[in-house]
Amino acid sequence: MKFLLRYLFTFASFLLTNQLMSQSNPTTYMRIARIVVDSAQLETYKVALKEGITTAVRTEPGVLSLTAVYEKDHPTHVTVFEIYADEKAYQSHIQTEHFLKYKATVQHMVKALELVDVSPIAVEAKIH
Amino acid sequence: MKFLLRYLFTFASFLLTNQLMSQSNPTTYMRIARIVVDSAQLETYKVALKEGITTAVRTEPGVLSLTAVYEKDHPTHVTVFEIYADEKAYQSHIQTEHFLKYKATVQHMVKALELVDVSPIAVEAKIH
Repeated sequence: MKFLLRYLFTFASFLLTNQLMSQSNPTTYMRIARIVVDSAQLETYKVALKEGITTAVRTEPGVLSLTAVYEKDHPTHVTVFEIYADEKAYQSHIQTEHFLKYKATVQHMVKALELVDVSPIAVEAKIH
Repeated sequence: MKFLLRYLFTFASFLLTNQLMSQSNPTTYMRIARIVVDSAQLETYKVALKEGITTAVRTEPGVLSLTAVYEKDHPTHVTVFEIYADEKAYQSHIQTEHFLKYKATVQHMVKALELVDVSPIAVEAKIH
């Protein structure tokens, strides 16, 4: 049993390392979206964003990772850190039903949107 | 064999989901560092940052994830997205030998540094 657990853990680590390496490979498309949200609609906006992100990562093979946060000192300032398998995966993502639904839902909640293309220097994460 | 592989995959997914959930739990400490680097020393800076990140994630139990990127249109503009188990893990991180070495190495390369505390809205990633 102990051996099996160790084997499972090694395999899990291998899969994760593989995934992280694929996030740093040359075709990977990474982006930061900086969003300013209308303060009166912030909670509704967060729900729509969370739903859009969860659906995208679960259903689209090329959407590797989406992380959305808000600034503690400026809660209306939201940052989304996005990792796609390649630019084609991103182009496909913005045509999906769930993305178009998110865009339609938040169109009057978003006061500013800045999209910044980025390249990786280091992408490191671990499992316990 | 097929059964074993499926079991391994499920277990790996469970570990990763667990990890991602722990990244969204209330004690998790998340931060964005926005750094402007001296253009003449950019490549040296990237090497030092990558080394610091790799060492921190591999050796410190409370450093869950560090992702560093630079902007394609402004390569001297670097963003580091940081996830620690809790604020104590972060306080411990900035006292480590590798972090102090990184700080000493880059002290004349960094032109501006902004540290922004953030809270999660959604943290989603997948393994293939």
